[in-house]
Amino acid sequence: MPFIVRPSPLNMQAEIITVGTELLLGQIVDTNATYIAQQLNAIGLNLFYKTTVGDNAARLKGVLEQAHHRSQVVITTGGIGPTEDDLTREMVAEATGRKLVFQQSLMDQIENIFKSRGFTSISPNNRKQAYIPEGAIPIENPVGTAPGFIVDDEKGVIISIPGVPFEMKYLMEKTVLPFLKKRFGLKGLIKYKVLKNSGIGESKIDNIIGDLITQSANPTVGLLAHVGQVDIRITVKADEEATADRLIAEMEAKIRERLPNAIFGTDQDTLEGVVAGILKKQNRTLAVAESNTGGLVALKLSTTPEAPSFLRGSIAAMTEGAVTHLLGVPQGLLREHGLASAQVAEAMASRIRALTGADLGLAIAGILNWNEKQPPETPPATFISIVGLGSDSITESYGMGGPASFVQTRIAIMSLEILRRKLIGELK
Amino acid sequence: MPFIVRPSPLNMQAEIITVGTELLLGQIVDTNATYIAQQLNAIGLNLFYKTTVGDNAARLKGVLEQAHHRSQVVITTGGIGPTEDDLTREMVAEATGRKLVFQQSLMDQIENIFKSRGFTSISPNNRKQAYIPEGAIPIENPVGTAPGFIVDDEKGVIISIPGVPFEMKYLMEKTVLPFLKKRFGLKGLIKYKVLKNSGIGESKIDNIIGDLITQSANPTVGLLAHVGQVDIRITVKADEEATADRLIAEMEAKIRERLPNAIFGTDQDTLEGVVAGILKKQNRTLAVAESNTGGLVALKLSTTPEAPSFLRGSIAAMTEGAVTHLLGVPQGLLREHGLASAQVAEAMASRIRALTGADLGLAIAGILNWNEKQPPETPPATFISIVGLGSDSITESYGMGGPASFVQTRIAIMSLEILRRKLIGELK
Repeated sequence: MPFIVRPSPLNMQAEIITVGTELLLGQIVDTNATYIAQQLNAIGLNLFYKTTVGDNAARLKGVLEQAHHRSQVVITTGGIGPTEDDLTREMVAEATGRKLVFQQSLMDQIENIFKSRGFTSISPNNRKQAYIPEGAIPIENPVGTAPGFIVDDEKGVIISIPGVPFEMKYLMEKTVLPFLKKRFGLKGLIKYKVLKNSGIGESKIDNIIGDLITQSANPTVGLLAHVGQVDIRITVKADEEATADRLIAEMEAKIRERLPNAIFGTDQDTLEGVVAGILKKQNRTLAVAESNTGGLVALKLSTTPEAPSFLRGSIAAMTEGAVTHLLGVPQGLLREHGLASAQVAEAMASRIRALTGADLGLAIAGILNWNEKQPPETPPATFISIVGLGSDSITESYGMGGPASFVQTRIAIMSLEILRRKLIGELK
Repeated sequence: MPFIVRPSPLNMQAEIITVGTELLLGQIVDTNATYIAQQLNAIGLNLFYKTTVGDNAARLKGVLEQAHHRSQVVITTGGIGPTEDDLTREMVAEATGRKLVFQQSLMDQIENIFKSRGFTSISPNNRKQAYIPEGAIPIENPVGTAPGFIVDDEKGVIISIPGVPFEMKYLMEKTVLPFLKKRFGLKGLIKYKVLKNSGIGESKIDNIIGDLITQSANPTVGLLAHVGQVDIRITVKADEEATADRLIAEMEAKIRERLPNAIFGTDQDTLEGVVAGILKKQNRTLAVAESNTGGLVALKLSTTPEAPSFLRGSIAAMTEGAVTHLLGVPQGLLREHGLASAQVAEAMASRIRALTGADLGLAIAGILNWNEKQPPETPPATFISIVGLGSDSITESYGMGGPASFVQTRIAIMSLEILRRKLIGELK
């Protein structure tokens, strides 16, 4: 492909335009934009906007003009199929002041694709797909019938590729990303690392590392809260991978120093995966007895690859009857203290350990509020107990209200986090 | 809430702005925009643009100004949390020429949420969330700590709600949609009903009702496949609710006639909720023993409001040792037939029933493939057994391969569907 390497301006920015009325009707989720965003960031392009617009000529043209005016790199997906409402080809031509011209090479390629798929006749509509804006660079599409194209002028580039995810990904990887790297002489890269924490809430983390969030330029630090988990994201721009890794490592060390033992893992790690890894490394087995979490802790652990080597089984007993029948906790103890008590949690942990012969017993004792319309005035307490680590058991209690599945997730994560901290020797 | 009903202009348009650098980095998929798009369409609002912008003051302000200028309805999600990089509140104020003012009522509500969740201290950051643009209508958020707000001026409305999906959906349904309907006097409506099925696959359903999908105009019929579930969606446009309901009912009757007993529920129904409802109605109790599903069937049932009245407890035993120790299934039986066998499934179902005194025992016997890098050549069989319904037990087997959590979900749904069909007397 013919193109000129121009120096990448410092303020260079990219944007994505996804085209299709189905996106505005909410009929499909825009996973294309997510994928393209990841890819652009990975080659060091700053993505500043994502815009979705329907199959409407005027609005599509307006969005294209605005994007081309303000951003050096514009990537569009969708709207280059053979039907009447596929307008991206025409509107890119109009927005850049060009006419559409027929490309025999693209027509040949479309015919080959049709032949290879066993279709005997090509619809006249498909001929439309061989037209691209005058002077544009054609992008052959060996995996589909919609070719793409690149318009490259003094303002920057508009790259149009199909909306079919499989074809879009193929063309991004094979053509678009190599083109962008060469065209803009991109050497730099953006790299990020996510530090994961489940023990400390978002506002408290913000209090502890807020200055790093507001005052750091490269790397930057940001927070993303999930139910029961706060991710700390370190993002760095650098010319070389080694520099990026060093800058990330320095920031990571600062954050870890302020949040000792709070980071349970990074990037793709899960809390249950980390706990499973520690258990396997320490050659310890575990059994779980759960009341209000309904078996969620054991379920999370069950899918880890280490599960068969450490998970000795679990019992979910949500009512006093079940705690007695399945775990053999004495009725008297339940009558005296109630299910949601430290005493019952410890008894459950001891019983599941004894029943299974596991090294450790983890138990969760609490009562789920099934009636979400009548939340209790004070959040009901849940007791989490671990037996088998050292001579003493450990029992902690939390008050936690809200919808049933929210409470289950929070308590399950909390239980795994307590177990993790206990296993690494932080909790006595 | 105070607002004026103004006639809805013919050219009225809506747009969505989703705020967050994590969206531009491609770290999360923007499912919020999809949901809001569906909801706006359902009340007859035309969605023309969706824009995503990062946590950057100038760009966020620019996007807000453009949207407010061209669209009567602007909905933003994200950027109203307690941290430094939450800027939506400030930028909506700037874009509409207002200052931020403190709202004691919102602060009280934030404090109540913190109390109800058992947090003892509120971070100073959270105080920020009680500020909204002057003159804006506050949106209390009973399910989270970030209140929303509505700015309503001569150009139209800007509605800002949180980005946490659970909170966003709650506020859309309870506050935003009712507000928009009244504020713009929206009368025409789009209504839809979803028929849910877990027993029959997507292509088979397409074979059975394909003509209704391709040939119907109002209502339209569409399919949406999830793991273990295919939704049949009936969408109708009408001026009045009664007409919409009648058209939907006619189409629903046609579909149900062709798929007898396959539709387990509609709209917000869940398979576990339907099964729980039948069990409660039939006054039957249930206990569950699971191997490869790791407790997922019991967990799903545990959150239904009926759980305390029918769920007698569950055991997750993923290995032969656990099946012996926790359920008391004889070692000889396991040696002879293996864990993944009809005999062991039946023994597990009988044992969990006996241990708990439940009317019904449901058991799932199979071995999870934890090593996803080495999938087995033929998908491993799982045996599902139900005892206690009539004189005979029922046992079915399925071959199912794939990633661990995918297999768990598929088998759990299958087990609940078999139980449902057995309970309604379809399976003998």
